Amino acid sequence: MLRFKTTFVILTALYLGLSGCSKEIDTQTNNPLPSWNDGSAKQSIINFVNEVTDENNPNFVKPADRIATFDNDGTLWSEQRYYFQLFFAIDRVKALAPEHPEWKTEQPFKAVLENDMETLISFGEHGLIQLVAATHSGMTTEEFEQIVNDWINIAKHPRFNRPFNELVYQPMLEVLNYLRANGFKTFIVSGGGIEFMRPWVNDVYGIPSEQVVGSLGKVKFEMRDGKPVLIKLPGIDFIDDKEGKPIAIHRFIGKRPIAAFGNSDGDLQMLQWTAAGDGARFMMYVHHTDAEREWAYDRDSHIGRLDKGLDEAIEKGWTVIDMKNDWKVIYPFEIKK
Amino acid sequence: MLRFKTTFVILTALYLGLSGCSKEIDTQTNNPLPSWNDGSAKQSIINFVNEVTDENNPNFVKPADRIATFDNDGTLWSEQRYYFQLFFAIDRVKALAPEHPEWKTEQPFKAVLENDMETLISFGEHGLIQLVAATHSGMTTEEFEQIVNDWINIAKHPRFNRPFNELVYQPMLEVLNYLRANGFKTFIVSGGGIEFMRPWVNDVYGIPSEQVVGSLGKVKFEMRDGKPVLIKLPGIDFIDDKEGKPIAIHRFIGKRPIAAFGNSDGDLQMLQWTAAGDGARFMMYVHHTDAEREWAYDRDSHIGRLDKGLDEAIEKGWTVIDMKNDWKVIYPFEIKK
Repeated sequence: MLRFKTTFVILTALYLGLSGCSKEIDTQTNNPLPSWNDGSAKQSIINFVNEVTDENNPNFVKPADRIATFDNDGTLWSEQRYYFQLFFAIDRVKALAPEHPEWKTEQPFKAVLENDMETLISFGEHGLIQLVAATHSGMTTEEFEQIVNDWINIAKHPRFNRPFNELVYQPMLEVLNYLRANGFKTFIVSGGGIEFMRPWVNDVYGIPSEQVVGSLGKVKFEMRDGKPVLIKLPGIDFIDDKEGKPIAIHRFIGKRPIAAFGNSDGDLQMLQWTAAGDGARFMMYVHHTDAEREWAYDRDSHIGRLDKGLDEAIEKGWTVIDMKNDWKVIYPFEIKK
Repeated sequence: MLRFKTTFVILTALYLGLSGCSKEIDTQTNNPLPSWNDGSAKQSIINFVNEVTDENNPNFVKPADRIATFDNDGTLWSEQRYYFQLFFAIDRVKALAPEHPEWKTEQPFKAVLENDMETLISFGEHGLIQLVAATHSGMTTEEFEQIVNDWINIAKHPRFNRPFNELVYQPMLEVLNYLRANGFKTFIVSGGGIEFMRPWVNDVYGIPSEQVVGSLGKVKFEMRDGKPVLIKLPGIDFIDDKEGKPIAIHRFIGKRPIAAFGNSDGDLQMLQWTAAGDGARFMMYVHHTDAEREWAYDRDSHIGRLDKGLDEAIEKGWTVIDMKNDWKVIYPFEIKK
């Protein structure tokens, strides 16, 4: 019997190692969220996962319906004052400026070229859309993908002097892995451009391109020398923010999430939509409370404002992460010396 | 040693049975496409799959990039003269007619109520859009899902006197399973309404809602008694046909398929887009050549016309299925007595 057991363990281990089917086993580890301090936020995630994966629990959810959606900016990676995509647009304006002498006198381009961020921000959402329209169009989708890849490999955040995709939250990476190990399918549902995220999110978050939902620029199908291409046009077809998030979830996924993670009022409708389904539900807000290690902002912030959402989260008992106290580390590089 | 092997087989079988990780094993069966006659069409599928799944082959494709897209109408289930969704719209017009006395004199509704299909067809695409606008809006997305579910369980095709979702192609179900058993992710990319397909395609094709791409009606987010709902509006936001198919593939999937299956000129751009990638590619047209068991139509048909696509398929050596000669059976009910 002992021999039988030993053989079983060895062979199962061998089989698991070869087949990539080890996920179900990982779920049994005792500390799936090592970068989280013990507390109600961490416990609420674990309780939820235990509940929906236990076949004997009335709130058991079959794996096909274990859909979890994550905002990106401020929820999976940092944003503060500016979306990281704005840094990309700014770098593109500077790279393209020699071809556009008119930008020296034309706003919001002039502000970008003069590094005048205060003026740039004063143009608000409309200014951002102008920058995106000018820098995210006029090439094929494949060319744009290459541009994003080049940028993400070279550009660095001014405060941390690190690539932007290193400024992702280690505790949230653990949540993504923990949910997937428990049979969840994890989706990004972000206001960011879908084509800006897809080139790098699989490597960083383990989320494949077909599980990335975002804002959509206009594209045109065209034959060039007998070869079909998709050309990026200046217009925007869909903004995946606020009411747009439940609509995009309905269109892209076609199932109501049972768990949703956000950080701002732009995520509120996604969390409301998730909360309105039957059975166990999990809604979480990342509350930016750590001015030292990251940033502290909520009700007064222009970008990533958390105001109505914070009230509703408190009123309805959704989980609000206190970044300063709930997270042992913020970024992966803090532990990967 | 014999004992070791036996234990291994038993335990592996046990493990596979318990874990649902048996896919890789199924690929080794000798006849994965039993409803296909031996011939070049069947062989071309098998050769392609062998090529892209063989790690020693220069055209090996890693599982994450094994994306296969399937048109629905005429490729996975029948269409002839009318898309099946038109039967649904017609039944909805009849059900809603008591609330719309004006339809007795207003086209195209009058034609529907008088069962005058010739007149109805004469209104073309525009008439269809009017029917869809009138019958696919004014309710929540959840109410619409229920209506589709009720219909698919009750309505029957006039020629076969069977539910519409039994008129799916057994040989194509085998292709879907064969591809999935070989690590492919299978997607529907159809001109049909995404909300008309999702309620039943998982049961019939094994394709989950998040892998269904289709045409999009307008929706609006709204709070009703404190609960968020999505309301279906009459307008159409996106038609997933012709040039729309590569655009939708780019938006929803974000990867270029390595295999694409269609039956009409509406699928040509999807096949061109698939063909234009590097490495091994598989493009297949279902050619409707069986007037007896299904229907025979191509260049002259109004719905499902295969004209330019047939020329291009022949010129470029894409696989063209001769339904009459390549398929032993058409529908699953022919073998499930």
